Amino acid sequence: MDLKKYIPSLQWLPYYNQTQLKGDLSAGITVGIMLIPQGMAYAMLAGLEPIHGLYAVTVPLVIYALFGSSRQLAVGPVAMVSLLTAAGISSLGPDSPEAYLLYALTLAFLVGAIQFFMGALRLGFVVNFLSHPVINGFTSAAAIIIGLSQVKHLLNISLPNSEHVQEMVVAIGQHIGDIHWLTFGLGVLGILIIKFGKKIHPALPAPLLAVALGILLVWGFGLTDKGVKIVGDVPGGLPALSFPSFDMSTWSTLLPIALTISLVGFAESFAVAKTIQAKHKNYRLDANQELVALGLSNFGAAFFSGYPVTGGFSRTAVNNQAGAKTTLASVISAGLILLTLLFFTGLFYYLPSAILAAVVLVAVAGLIDFKEPVNLWYKDKADFAMLIATFLITLTMGIETGIIMGMILSLLVVIYRASRPHMAQLGRVPGTKIYRNIRRFKDLEINKNLLIVRIDGPIYFANVEYIRDKMDLWLSERKNQTKMIIFNMESITSIDSTGAHALYEWIQTWRSDKIDVCITGTKGPIRDVLDKWKLIECIGADHMFMDDYSATAFFEQTLDTKSQEKYAPYALQSNAEKK
Amino acid sequence: MDLKKYIPSLQWLPYYNQTQLKGDLSAGITVGIMLIPQGMAYAMLAGLEPIHGLYAVTVPLVIYALFGSSRQLAVGPVAMVSLLTAAGISSLGPDSPEAYLLYALTLAFLVGAIQFFMGALRLGFVVNFLSHPVINGFTSAAAIIIGLSQVKHLLNISLPNSEHVQEMVVAIGQHIGDIHWLTFGLGVLGILIIKFGKKIHPALPAPLLAVALGILLVWGFGLTDKGVKIVGDVPGGLPALSFPSFDMSTWSTLLPIALTISLVGFAESFAVAKTIQAKHKNYRLDANQELVALGLSNFGAAFFSGYPVTGGFSRTAVNNQAGAKTTLASVISAGLILLTLLFFTGLFYYLPSAILAAVVLVAVAGLIDFKEPVNLWYKDKADFAMLIATFLITLTMGIETGIIMGMILSLLVVIYRASRPHMAQLGRVPGTKIYRNIRRFKDLEINKNLLIVRIDGPIYFANVEYIRDKMDLWLSERKNQTKMIIFNMESITSIDSTGAHALYEWIQTWRSDKIDVCITGTKGPIRDVLDKWKLIECIGADHMFMDDYSATAFFEQTLDTKSQEKYAPYALQSNAEKK
Repeated sequence: MDLKKYIPSLQWLPYYNQTQLKGDLSAGITVGIMLIPQGMAYAMLAGLEPIHGLYAVTVPLVIYALFGSSRQLAVGPVAMVSLLTAAGISSLGPDSPEAYLLYALTLAFLVGAIQFFMGALRLGFVVNFLSHPVINGFTSAAAIIIGLSQVKHLLNISLPNSEHVQEMVVAIGQHIGDIHWLTFGLGVLGILIIKFGKKIHPALPAPLLAVALGILLVWGFGLTDKGVKIVGDVPGGLPALSFPSFDMSTWSTLLPIALTISLVGFAESFAVAKTIQAKHKNYRLDANQELVALGLSNFGAAFFSGYPVTGGFSRTAVNNQAGAKTTLASVISAGLILLTLLFFTGLFYYLPSAILAAVVLVAVAGLIDFKEPVNLWYKDKADFAMLIATFLITLTMGIETGIIMGMILSLLVVIYRASRPHMAQLGRVPGTKIYRNIRRFKDLEINKNLLIVRIDGPIYFANVEYIRDKMDLWLSERKNQTKMIIFNMESITSIDSTGAHALYEWIQTWRSDKIDVCITGTKGPIRDVLDKWKLIECIGADHMFMDDYSATAFFEQTLDTKSQEKYAPYALQSNAEKK
Repeated sequence: MDLKKYIPSLQWLPYYNQTQLKGDLSAGITVGIMLIPQGMAYAMLAGLEPIHGLYAVTVPLVIYALFGSSRQLAVGPVAMVSLLTAAGISSLGPDSPEAYLLYALTLAFLVGAIQFFMGALRLGFVVNFLSHPVINGFTSAAAIIIGLSQVKHLLNISLPNSEHVQEMVVAIGQHIGDIHWLTFGLGVLGILIIKFGKKIHPALPAPLLAVALGILLVWGFGLTDKGVKIVGDVPGGLPALSFPSFDMSTWSTLLPIALTISLVGFAESFAVAKTIQAKHKNYRLDANQELVALGLSNFGAAFFSGYPVTGGFSRTAVNNQAGAKTTLASVISAGLILLTLLFFTGLFYYLPSAILAAVVLVAVAGLIDFKEPVNLWYKDKADFAMLIATFLITLTMGIETGIIMGMILSLLVVIYRASRPHMAQLGRVPGTKIYRNIRRFKDLEINKNLLIVRIDGPIYFANVEYIRDKMDLWLSERKNQTKMIIFNMESITSIDSTGAHALYEWIQTWRSDKIDVCITGTKGPIRDVLDKWKLIECIGADHMFMDDYSATAFFEQTLDTKSQEKYAPYALQSNAEKK
């Protein structure tokens, strides 16, 4: 029965023990406490009422606990996805908070559907096509944009919604005189508490301390009268059942942002899951199962008043440090949030927005990476250029354009590399039957009339042009003295129909130019493909050899006998030139 | 001076001779005569007045003649690009013929800009990422859609504009009673003449014969009074200077279709140019120069009242068969068209639309490929599935969706393959210093404590996950008895920053698991990369070897001495198990 593959929690549940429970309890409570301010802060960043951030860490966490293949991943709202949600929805100009929420629910539903089906179709590998420098440049720029978006809460000034840094900076400059210093002071206090609390111990609930202190200060000194903005009424009770929109035109307008969130969210989540899994090694991580689990979690968010969620970086690290052994820790976190929703939401009435802004600011400040660009500048100029390009595009043209351009940049690199397989001309190591790359080994025996070529990789649509061009180049470098090409196929792993068509055409062309062709070292599956496409018939079964040595012997034989008639004009010349 | 590279016509112009002129004259006149009905028919397919098809084969042809690297390519309107133009513009709902024309000019301008800059940025390689089966499926479906779009002219019935086959078929069914049999008869006559004319001799101007006969019949028997639709006034005179729109919002709405036309047009053009070049071999074809030349030609179309052009399949074949030796043939064709525009446009007044429909129908009928799907069904099921998927999507969801889904399908294959480099475990050929793939060679010497791995390809962002997973799999298959991993890097061609980071992390992880790591066979550039990223420092200079044999010797030495302490618990076990 394969049920354990699809519900990975069944792998540990039957063997669950007390030691694990101890760790899970400690981690579950730590992360739960962390989630209260984070959930509200990120919901605010996403443009939603803070309560939806708390709803988003109830049902989705339980679903992930069941289906996730990571045992330490802490799912919930994260900064990047929250910002993408805000950017995506505000560009549609919803006319009321209800419409805004409906868009957020629909987005969660679409993200869930995309991730679920990508997982079911085993497309987890596509996450590979976001390269390290692109993610790095994008994350740093996004962190700056997120940070700037919180300035209005920190300074209590009103700024227009924007995700273009130049506009944001100008707007902040224009409103610099309106700063509400009391709010700013509270925010700075919050930042300091969170920042230094983190330094004392990473599992210290410093954000919750900041929240508590903020509430006490505002309530005790009546700061609302002095103009400090507060969160206000936070409705109590369990998350209500909600429904996304099933309107096709809404779907198609939300699709691009949903795709972006699906990929970015999964990339972040999977990266952190991998890092943590490498420290444990007592379970296997499955990219496709992760997609399915995150997809189902997002369905949970869509139907229980949340908004898009994914695995978070710092939260997962805290979960692991606090001792999480299984995903039961997440269930405990969710339980803590449910208790809060039932009994303690009234406490958050006086919570100042500036403290939530402080939570976000400290979280994203850590995402700005200065070291990597410097590192790449010295070590890999091409990757440095990709990082800076993605960074600048994201910063000046916005989050969505940034990630799309980053993907296109990464894809161009993949296509470029895929279209250029490694090819080598071979020569014989004197006195042996071994053939090696003539660019890498000296003193190899090379016959000017014989071109031995090895292609390292598959022959398929993306690289046939390159292979053809390279062959033409080598043939012309040899000034058309080539009388035989030996194709060493020992490193060829597959040939698709485009490759088979091309091979057929090349053989025909070369033969018509009086260049014979042999094939050596084919493996079983490749031989089958050649046979199906009638390429063995085309090339002749007597032109297929086990190794280059036998093919070379055949070449020398035909030169000495058959070739006298067949290649008469060449034979004389080549004998003279033969070393 | 590199001028000859950027203006390839300078390569042949100084050595131009009479033999070449003879061929070029014959070809230029043949193609020119072919262009008159084709230009008008394709313009009609694109939803434009027929005259713009003639304008499109004046200035653009001369520009291509100067800058093109192919010497036989015949540039002009083609069926696919015309249909894409019609589909793209009509979805924008232009409110007048003038607005429609402005869109067409702007499209030509954008296509020109995209192609020009792709060429300048040397992005010609991206054309590789449309696979053979995708192009095949797309072309067959597009041919059917184009054919159905001509039915209204052939039957003289009014049909709604659509590019979804199901709607088109239903609409034709509903109007089947309205068929104008006289028009239909004329169309069938046209088809027969063109079809059989082609069989008699491919260079016979059968389409022009059909056009002439059509005109004579309509004029002679006064068929317009009997309801036969004619082309009507065709304005005479040279193509007027025209200007595309420079409105940004127009640009952004046209951008997706412009991108599609740029890629599809270039793919078709380059494929035919390659085929013809292979027959001549007296010049080199350059993908990037081709993009630049087509881009400039499209600028010519934008500023001289044309619409998007590219190299056409059948026309180029005719040009070559008729003896074209250089692009002067295109200049001669353009001259013939200019003469027609100046003096003979009046002759086309009575030309029945049904004859132009016949020209298009015969052209596209040849594009429907039945053989390849059957072929692929037997030979390559995966490619068959791609062909059928692209075919069905294009047929039912339209041209644009079809080509985009085809590209995505192709891209997924590229990414999938790029993310799975070939990896082999190596073993020693007994009694030698040679190491081979243990899956392919029998009776190799394998030490259970030693994992020798060769990766064939680069280590970069797209494949690090796969490599890591494969290594984990192999390590667990060996039941954690591995004490040393030897990384054979002789086939590794490059390592990017993601690859370097990953290698660093792997080495750290394995070392912490008491698995030592050695690297063998690095080439110069790879050694430089390892050095820059401090990987040689990380692995230890004494762990770098020329070949697997030396590394194995080192492994056996350390096992006998150092390892006694370092790997004590493993040493005993492994000695017992050593074969």
